[in-house]
Amino acid sequence: MKVSKLIGSRFKERPADCVIDSHALMVRGGYMKNVGNGIFSEFPTLKRITAKIENIIRQEMDAIDGQEVLFPVVLPADLWDESGRYESVGSELLRFTDRNDSKMVLAMTHEEAAVHLVREYAQSYTKYPFMIYQIQRKFRDEARPRAGMIRVREFTMKDAYSFHTSQEDLERYYNKCYDAYNRIFARAGIPEVVTVASDSGMMGGNISHEYMLLTPVGEDSIVLCTECDYRANMEAAENKIDDNVSGELEELQCIETPDCKTIEDVCKFLKSDVTSSCKAVVYQKNADDTFVVAFVRGDYEVNETKLRNLVGEEIHPAEITEEDCLVAGYIGPYDIAKEAEFYLDVTLKGIPSLVAGANKEGYHYTGLNLERDLEKAEYVDISKIQEGSICPCCGKKAITIQRGIEVGNIFQLGTKYTESMGMQYTDENGKQQYPIMGCYGIGVGRLAASICEAHHDDFGPIWPISIAPWEVHVCCLRADDEETKQTADKLYQDLLNAGVEVIYDDREGIRPGAMFSDADLLGVPIRVVVSPRNLKESCVEITTRDKSVKEMVPVEEAMAFIQNLKNDLYQKIQDKVEPYKE
Amino acid sequence: MKVSKLIGSRFKERPADCVIDSHALMVRGGYMKNVGNGIFSEFPTLKRITAKIENIIRQEMDAIDGQEVLFPVVLPADLWDESGRYESVGSELLRFTDRNDSKMVLAMTHEEAAVHLVREYAQSYTKYPFMIYQIQRKFRDEARPRAGMIRVREFTMKDAYSFHTSQEDLERYYNKCYDAYNRIFARAGIPEVVTVASDSGMMGGNISHEYMLLTPVGEDSIVLCTECDYRANMEAAENKIDDNVSGELEELQCIETPDCKTIEDVCKFLKSDVTSSCKAVVYQKNADDTFVVAFVRGDYEVNETKLRNLVGEEIHPAEITEEDCLVAGYIGPYDIAKEAEFYLDVTLKGIPSLVAGANKEGYHYTGLNLERDLEKAEYVDISKIQEGSICPCCGKKAITIQRGIEVGNIFQLGTKYTESMGMQYTDENGKQQYPIMGCYGIGVGRLAASICEAHHDDFGPIWPISIAPWEVHVCCLRADDEETKQTADKLYQDLLNAGVEVIYDDREGIRPGAMFSDADLLGVPIRVVVSPRNLKESCVEITTRDKSVKEMVPVEEAMAFIQNLKNDLYQKIQDKVEPYKE
Repeated sequence: MKVSKLIGSRFKERPADCVIDSHALMVRGGYMKNVGNGIFSEFPTLKRITAKIENIIRQEMDAIDGQEVLFPVVLPADLWDESGRYESVGSELLRFTDRNDSKMVLAMTHEEAAVHLVREYAQSYTKYPFMIYQIQRKFRDEARPRAGMIRVREFTMKDAYSFHTSQEDLERYYNKCYDAYNRIFARAGIPEVVTVASDSGMMGGNISHEYMLLTPVGEDSIVLCTECDYRANMEAAENKIDDNVSGELEELQCIETPDCKTIEDVCKFLKSDVTSSCKAVVYQKNADDTFVVAFVRGDYEVNETKLRNLVGEEIHPAEITEEDCLVAGYIGPYDIAKEAEFYLDVTLKGIPSLVAGANKEGYHYTGLNLERDLEKAEYVDISKIQEGSICPCCGKKAITIQRGIEVGNIFQLGTKYTESMGMQYTDENGKQQYPIMGCYGIGVGRLAASICEAHHDDFGPIWPISIAPWEVHVCCLRADDEETKQTADKLYQDLLNAGVEVIYDDREGIRPGAMFSDADLLGVPIRVVVSPRNLKESCVEITTRDKSVKEMVPVEEAMAFIQNLKNDLYQKIQDKVEPYKE
Repeated sequence: MKVSKLIGSRFKERPADCVIDSHALMVRGGYMKNVGNGIFSEFPTLKRITAKIENIIRQEMDAIDGQEVLFPVVLPADLWDESGRYESVGSELLRFTDRNDSKMVLAMTHEEAAVHLVREYAQSYTKYPFMIYQIQRKFRDEARPRAGMIRVREFTMKDAYSFHTSQEDLERYYNKCYDAYNRIFARAGIPEVVTVASDSGMMGGNISHEYMLLTPVGEDSIVLCTECDYRANMEAAENKIDDNVSGELEELQCIETPDCKTIEDVCKFLKSDVTSSCKAVVYQKNADDTFVVAFVRGDYEVNETKLRNLVGEEIHPAEITEEDCLVAGYIGPYDIAKEAEFYLDVTLKGIPSLVAGANKEGYHYTGLNLERDLEKAEYVDISKIQEGSICPCCGKKAITIQRGIEVGNIFQLGTKYTESMGMQYTDENGKQQYPIMGCYGIGVGRLAASICEAHHDDFGPIWPISIAPWEVHVCCLRADDEETKQTADKLYQDLLNAGVEVIYDDREGIRPGAMFSDADLLGVPIRVVVSPRNLKESCVEITTRDKSVKEMVPVEEAMAFIQNLKNDLYQKIQDKVEPYKE
């Protein structure tokens, strides 16, 4: 491929709407073009990268006995009705009707389609275990697409579904897939990806892990322990606290607190500490607008996902009017309206005397002791863990919170889909059983962007050779000089003949600076510069995009040097790939 | 891969809803599963076939300098508004709104997305010519999906778009692509595909060709000349007729014809010949329901596509009520209501005396001479050519009509999209110009089904080796017999080690008949049967799925025999592939 023929424009100015570097560089480098909100086309350079990523994924999925299939992008709503998700999933599921007014959805994930495909096939235990996967487009109607290919609405995803006859067998396979994922990220050049225990959200099931690339621009918060190996996402991190023993036991009193609608107002007015105040955060159930009140200690935040899982249905932040049973700004657990469902967070446990709303305009209680004053005080974990919190694993106050991009996830689904969709098999004893499922996802475009985010400088991406659009970039400075042009042409042709993936810049009348800027934006790992100055010494200059190699190499040795360098770069990546344990 | 692990069930009974063999065999063989109306999932066996087809297509597109890109499946309606197709295309374009009430479409073709991707890039003549292609899912909301993968709603398609600075350059490239397509079909094992000139329909542009697999189950009618090379589809075939000189010139008379609402009734009542009667077929414009009347000779049919192209907008069969200006059953060109637009087909030209409706309930004209009696008689081609018609090319009465499946198409689009979407480049003289486009499509799934339709017997598909799911199928009859099992196991392993794509049936307790039925349904070109009986003679039996080879081969020679046979089968396919002309 010649740069002069490569489709896609490169330019210097950082687009104003690009908040993260990978997005800016991939737009500037002619990798992608925005078609609509969260919808992109891929130029040839990006398509080459995603094709390589897909091949790595395909090889690793095949290595763990995956069989590639293909599900449709458009699914009948019936199928999602069977699992109950047509109703339960929010507006990120795009629903529409076809020309015959049949209800359809754009698949954002394919559990239903997977069960549908195999439920007649896998009616005997002898067929198990098995795994099917696809690499296919998906559409998720995100409210806030952002950061280029990181959070889009339409994307290519590898999604895999495994089926088992026992939890043990699922776990065995889950661990195999766990390793396969680590191999995939290592082969794609980001071995630094970490796994975190995660909340499985709308997928159902219990155990799940996310693969996270730690980066300050990530949109997910990851909880890590600096003393042990504990890692979890915010939703999955159990919030443990020291016993709340500060303060004295007091008498319950209802105090007038005029115009004190926030925790800060109340603490200031009563000269009390935020750690002995009871904060109310109010939600409503999507289904019937019933109020759900979460009480947490004043210095903690509610974790909506934990609360949602507890409530067991979709909720949204409440709008409280004067007609409602709750008094906005003065809500407390004591004497709260019976219509409101409420939960007490673990952060409130054991506090001798709390300040809390009195459920009466302009009044708060002081001296509230939940165990003493409430009929029944049960505590649940609905708060967010904080920097410096107690590690749920080793118990040390060593929690730190970092940002990350989720580049993959694996779930133990259990029988949620097989039960709801009536998929059964006959076991060894002739008994009907529901198979146990796992599912495993990787977003291809997001992975490409994450690799760029992990490996770039101010001038462009630094693609790992395993997924780089080309392996070698030949720059012919001064294509108008005959010897230079001939040397570069020959090298290009020799590299092509040797099966090296090479891009060749033989444009005339381009300044060296502009040519190098273009090369930086294309991010090809090995660069060969052929110029009259180098040729005076009968050399070409060979560098790596990451600047670790920079050598003048005699022309006649260039081919061998490049081949060796190429092999080295591949080997360096391979060195980080753990072999399968079996 | 072992048959015992292969996902997908095979069965004997032909499904009642399968009207064509390829559909029935691909359902019976565990290739595909219906998910919804015209929507299918692909089992691993089919996925392997489509992946191979995609690779052949990709190689040939790359060989003619195509650059692979990827467009989204979901497009903003804006883009289709730019080209005017958001309005002009019928309900096969699936329109919907997203969560923000933005209008979107499911792309059924990607001309708009292609122009959108390159219109900033290609602003100088120096960038031309170029071609971009993708292999991507598409959705077309077909009114009548049918015949399995032949006419579906969601499908994988290779679509390519080329851009040129002159009609000559487009034609040069179009011819190159024409050859590439012939190579693709030959490499996929159906070199018998023919090209026909076609109507370009909603795509715009003039010259276009369809690649047709001739088969009685095809849904398209193809016009061929038995005397020359002329081939066209029904819509594109010009209907030429002999001069209509039969009959005498008569006087125009209005005759009472009670209850004669059809041509047959009238001819019978008036004892006139159908070839001198004037048939009226009535449509309405979709936009405003204006009537459009097509008059053809009584023994011809109206070709709706020709009429639609002439009218220049969408039309549908009319519903005529008593309030309308037309009198159903008695419509004729003489004295027809001024509100109705009407066209006279070439088949009416020169007829001395016609019988035609009198636009009055219960009356017809006889002796109607269009040239004499109408203010202006112009003739257009809006009728379907018939078996035995005059060839528009050689002029002989040698037209024959066959059925075919369209497996690909190529179009010269002209500037329809670049003009409407404002894509321009600066030419050598600094002048702004609109690039000229071509577009080139192949449906991957339809091609797979067509190959099956072309190559099957009663027992299953006979896949050409180039696209077969596996190259070799090893059957171990009597896996309970130790020597047999060991021999078959070793052969399987040796073939795998030699890089042969092999599927292995080592199931115990399966009758040979059932094992062979499964093998027939999988359609793998080379079959190796290892059985105690064969081993008594120290042989295995090697056959081809098409029965052309059937040999007992000594065990120790089996590997070499298989390798040779495999090479022969590939070579036979390659022999039908024409090299590129340049």
